[in-house]
Amino acid sequence: MKKIIVELGDRSYPIYAGIDLLSKGNLLLENIRSKQIMIVSNTIVAPLYLETVMQALQGMALQGSAAEGLEINSVILPDGEQYKTLDAVNDIITALLDKRYGRTSCLVALGGGVVGDITGFAAACYQRGIDYIQIPTTVLAQVDSSVGGKTGVNHAAGKNMIGAFHQPRAVIADIAVLDTLSDREVSAGLAEVVKYGLIRDKNFFDWLEKNVEQLLNREAEALAYIIEQSCRNKAEVVAEDERESGLRAILNFGHTFGHAIETGLGYGKWLHGEAIALGMLMAADLSHRLGWITEEVIERIKQMLVKLNLPIALPDDLNPKNMRELMSVDKKAKDGVLFLVLLKGIGEAVVTDEFDEDLLMETLQHFSLVNVSPAERNS
Amino acid sequence: MKKIIVELGDRSYPIYAGIDLLSKGNLLLENIRSKQIMIVSNTIVAPLYLETVMQALQGMALQGSAAEGLEINSVILPDGEQYKTLDAVNDIITALLDKRYGRTSCLVALGGGVVGDITGFAAACYQRGIDYIQIPTTVLAQVDSSVGGKTGVNHAAGKNMIGAFHQPRAVIADIAVLDTLSDREVSAGLAEVVKYGLIRDKNFFDWLEKNVEQLLNREAEALAYIIEQSCRNKAEVVAEDERESGLRAILNFGHTFGHAIETGLGYGKWLHGEAIALGMLMAADLSHRLGWITEEVIERIKQMLVKLNLPIALPDDLNPKNMRELMSVDKKAKDGVLFLVLLKGIGEAVVTDEFDEDLLMETLQHFSLVNVSPAERNS
Repeated sequence: MKKIIVELGDRSYPIYAGIDLLSKGNLLLENIRSKQIMIVSNTIVAPLYLETVMQALQGMALQGSAAEGLEINSVILPDGEQYKTLDAVNDIITALLDKRYGRTSCLVALGGGVVGDITGFAAACYQRGIDYIQIPTTVLAQVDSSVGGKTGVNHAAGKNMIGAFHQPRAVIADIAVLDTLSDREVSAGLAEVVKYGLIRDKNFFDWLEKNVEQLLNREAEALAYIIEQSCRNKAEVVAEDERESGLRAILNFGHTFGHAIETGLGYGKWLHGEAIALGMLMAADLSHRLGWITEEVIERIKQMLVKLNLPIALPDDLNPKNMRELMSVDKKAKDGVLFLVLLKGIGEAVVTDEFDEDLLMETLQHFSLVNVSPAERNS
Repeated sequence: MKKIIVELGDRSYPIYAGIDLLSKGNLLLENIRSKQIMIVSNTIVAPLYLETVMQALQGMALQGSAAEGLEINSVILPDGEQYKTLDAVNDIITALLDKRYGRTSCLVALGGGVVGDITGFAAACYQRGIDYIQIPTTVLAQVDSSVGGKTGVNHAAGKNMIGAFHQPRAVIADIAVLDTLSDREVSAGLAEVVKYGLIRDKNFFDWLEKNVEQLLNREAEALAYIIEQSCRNKAEVVAEDERESGLRAILNFGHTFGHAIETGLGYGKWLHGEAIALGMLMAADLSHRLGWITEEVIERIKQMLVKLNLPIALPDDLNPKNMRELMSVDKKAKDGVLFLVLLKGIGEAVVTDEFDEDLLMETLQHFSLVNVSPAERNS
């Protein structure tokens, strides 16, 4: 088992990554300082793992005094980004109130990024803040969304517009659960892994290029390695800038484009990682048009996405004008000025508003035409 | 104009109290560091003061470079505690997104405690946290709810169950606006003023006993004095314990009883201050049954409430069993154990779970029978 610490003073917490951690009741209980535990999961994950986690906790409750008097309950949410709303937060809070859970209770997020974001935000808001721990069950959540304390839900007009910074008490990433994911979900999760290479870790990107097959085959050693490297990269950035006043913004590489795609298509059509993959390629394309990176770098990124079966063109129903409009709603806009994360090279990201608006439109244009034949273009 | 500072390191902020502050555009703008301003008010307050505030800001915008490029918009909420919900928060966020307001925008809460709590929570959540300032327009909000950074909304099953700690950038209390309040609202607001005397400031309580008439007549000097003293008391407590891990809990004196009354009756039947007034008397009664304060102290508190036209008995439709059940949902419950703020004397509050459950039931019984004739009691 690997252990990485996110260094945040009195809000520091451990990330554990390893095999079959879900059934380790002592690992869970070591990181929970409450007697009232509410596990939040969804209709896909709960049938697979809820029983395991509950039994692990109850097993400990039978064995030892540390677990005496534990109350363990659960809330099961519908699955999907379209349910990442204030209503879901309200459902969790209703469950907490039904069970008379107090200010010292603890939520456990058992699921992917959506479950983690909703649960974290419910924990941030319930009685103005209670503990929670993350048990991420997708690649995306294990390498990215469960770490760093960004929580929140979507608004009809924009992704993650309602939320809070609220750090978990611990993150427990069990590699064994990745076995039950679809290939599409694994690929989408790997998009965020590629991101860490592109924004700040060239060696990691090089390694990824050589190990794509092992990852797609879900070899445990390769998975353990990318979880560790991704979490280490993220933990370092978050430790330096918890509330995103500067450096942390580089973690949004590909996200302003990506969120526009997700909002434009309607939540749930593309997976988050798919939208981010294309968003990264678009940001790289704009960086190239600005003369900051070579054609060859773009090609390496594109090949990586192709090997991972990730999208490299916009869907038909999004045109450049839509996209541009949606991008200006993104959180990265400051006083109406759009800031983007762009590349100066592999492993070197910058946050900037110094890009030519015409070049941005060229990029948007380029990716909306990629899939269209020349005949259609002229029609 | 009085100025009191809430000392919270880099989250410190000023409270201004004085006459006709609403029309002072420079005072407002000095405390706003954003170009995008959204004023949140309600259907009662907006017709009275929204124009004044907007004109003050726009006047400054015409005059000076500091105000150049200001965008000023407003959202008007329905009036009343029953609208203090997640839906109202969502309405504010919809307005912010409609206007493409970014992460550096600022909300202005223009109204009573309900508007302030909702607006503060919307500010805490929008894009994971933006600035807000408080312009409280009721006694209650000026002396209590606008200060200290507690924000939030109600859940059907409990008051203020969804919220965040999020400090405003400034509080601007204009005494002139109190003129338009009903007598009932003024009295309800004075309940929280009495609270400061009871929990930590015996001299202030003595002063209040001598100056009830001046306050009910809304004499400016007396009002300025109680706002200053209340805010000073609150600022001192909040500075010591921002997130209520200890001392700050004494500010909830009367609130566990009071919230149970409000929840039991349905929001909006009694004013918050009315419920808190009776809650304080009930907490004092229990303190007396525990032998901690004399009958005479109870009588002083009761007389104060009577002079202020505040309730001293439970409404007919709440029985002791209801009340006890509702109290256990309160946030002050820890791992299922109920903590109450009780008195050891005037100006001396304690937070404790060391009270006899039977004595608590006696108190609840006592206040549900006060209004009932002996004949009815025996029927």
